[in-house]
Amino acid sequence: MSGGYGHVAPFPTRWSDNDSYGHLNNTIYYSAMDTTINAWLIEVAGFDPASSSAIALCVSSSCEFQASASFPEPLELGLRASRLGTSSVTWELGVLRPVSHDLVATGTFVHVFVDRTTRRPVPIPAAIRAAIERELLPDSAA
Amino acid sequence: MSGGYGHVAPFPTRWSDNDSYGHLNNTIYYSAMDTTINAWLIEVAGFDPASSSAIALCVSSSCEFQASASFPEPLELGLRASRLGTSSVTWELGVLRPVSHDLVATGTFVHVFVDRTTRRPVPIPAAIRAAIERELLPDSAA
Amino acid sequence: MSGGYGHVAPFPTRWSDNDSYGHLNNTIYYSAMDTTINAWLIEVAGFDPASSSAIALCVSSSCEFQASASFPEPLELGLRASRLGTSSVTWELGVLRPVSHDLVATGTFVHVFVDRTTRRPVPIPAAIRAAIERELLPDSAA
Amino acid sequence: MSGGYGHVAPFPTRWSDNDSYGHLNNTIYYSAMDTTINAWLIEVAGFDPASSSAIALCVSSSCEFQASASFPEPLELGLRASRLGTSSVTWELGVLRPVSHDLVATGTFVHVFVDRTTRRPVPIPAAIRAAIERELLPDSAA
Repeated sequence: MSGGYGHVAPFPTRWSDNDSYGHLNNTIYYSAMDTTINAWLIEVAGFDPASSSAIALCVSSSCEFQASASFPEPLELGLRASRLGTSSVTWELGVLRPVSHDLVATGTFVHVFVDRTTRRPVPIPAAIRAAIERELLPDSAA
Repeated sequence: MSGGYGHVAPFPTRWSDNDSYGHLNNTIYYSAMDTTINAWLIEVAGFDPASSSAIALCVSSSCEFQASASFPEPLELGLRASRLGTSSVTWELGVLRPVSHDLVATGTFVHVFVDRTTRRPVPIPAAIRAAIERELLPDSAA
Repeated sequence: MSGGYGHVAPFPTRWSDNDSYGHLNNTIYYSAMDTTINAWLIEVAGFDPASSSAIALCVSSSCEFQASASFPEPLELGLRASRLGTSSVTWELGVLRPVSHDLVATGTFVHVFVDRTTRRPVPIPAAIRAAIERELLPDSAA
Repeated sequence: MSGGYGHVAPFPTRWSDNDSYGHLNNTIYYSAMDTTINAWLIEVAGFDPASSSAIALCVSSSCEFQASASFPEPLELGLRASRLGTSSVTWELGVLRPVSHDLVATGTFVHVFVDRTTRRPVPIPAAIRAAIERELLPDSAA
């Protein structure tokens, strides 16, 4: 992964994503980032949001919008991790146009893993940590 | 309740509710109906969606759109019940403009109460049944 | 098109589509149907929602829910037309699981084409009518 | 306005705002902020999103989540401006519980006013600038 994203996933748009200005509402970019991270956690890192004792809560997020996009244009999301702590992980995402790879937006998400019941921080589950280290950290071989 | 709704609740709109045509997307009306029913179940009928052994699943819904509405215009939702079975209830809803009471849309929802774990039908909890009979059936005194 | 759908399109789900019960909220099915119809109108029938003098407004819709589905499970939408009037078209949609083709839900949408400015009914544009007749009516050869 | 927000508005929640974890999905906070800003622009500052030659596009946003909230709990949004440039304005928002005024989240939005057609930056309309200076800047008398 040379300066890029360790994971890339398609993110098709929906009719109701467009707002009054005929382009994707800003909230949709957060839904795209949230979806990309959770799908990766579930499908690649083996996370089960319905039964895992640890769940990932978003404690902060941000987005910079470089260009606009509109349904029915599909988007592509790139995902990498920039910081991996004991309980928390900082994700960096890029929202791209599929063919040109033009950047539409960049964003960050910080997740803290907490106990499902007490909602107190817990260590990131070992399998998830290993998958992040293997696939999403900048010095991962890819 | 003479031909009208036993319960009326405000439903403010959001910027992102408007779609490319500058009016509320059709899906928002379903969100408005869903929200009105669930808020009534929780706040009036004592339903607890986080712990109740019976939960209400939507098995069918419909909506007729008479007029359009746009953010930031607030809406008002009227709620009544038209049929109360052993496990299921048919809700009828009206989406109204607050001051004029002009009708924007009318809709129906059918909920079946099921066991949270097995998802098999169960009788409507007694307290909820009593609240529906008391406040939302056409022959309720109001 | 022998009893089936003239058009089938993928509909990936999003993290925020799941509600408190851990399955797709009922409103998402309407978003899936709305998205499938509009994408078909734009990509197959040449409709331009940003500049066309005629736009399609939803005047009624309905959905029957046969099963539940959850993110990150992808869905597939089938589309056909059951009635084609002067200004209006009735769409029938099926929400399916991609591999098994198990039916999750079925729904209907009625669109009326109206003038963008006056919002009065106008004839369905000829190119759209032809595409519906060619691809989405039950007696289309396919 | 002594250290606080020049404008406060209610933000009721919806059933579908809750995600699989039974609390408001992170994207809803952005919808709450977006809605509060646009409602203020329309209702207080005289902005007309359907016809104004200048429209406000979001170029960046961020949110810090201090606590969680769940439907049917209503929220309250506080709004102030922290920087007012020629074409851009930085909004600061607080998401609060209505009675306790406990802070649930804080966020920022940067809007750039652009020409509706060319999407090139234009000066903030005079009436909007005056309303921001009067009601939302920290040194406004209130």
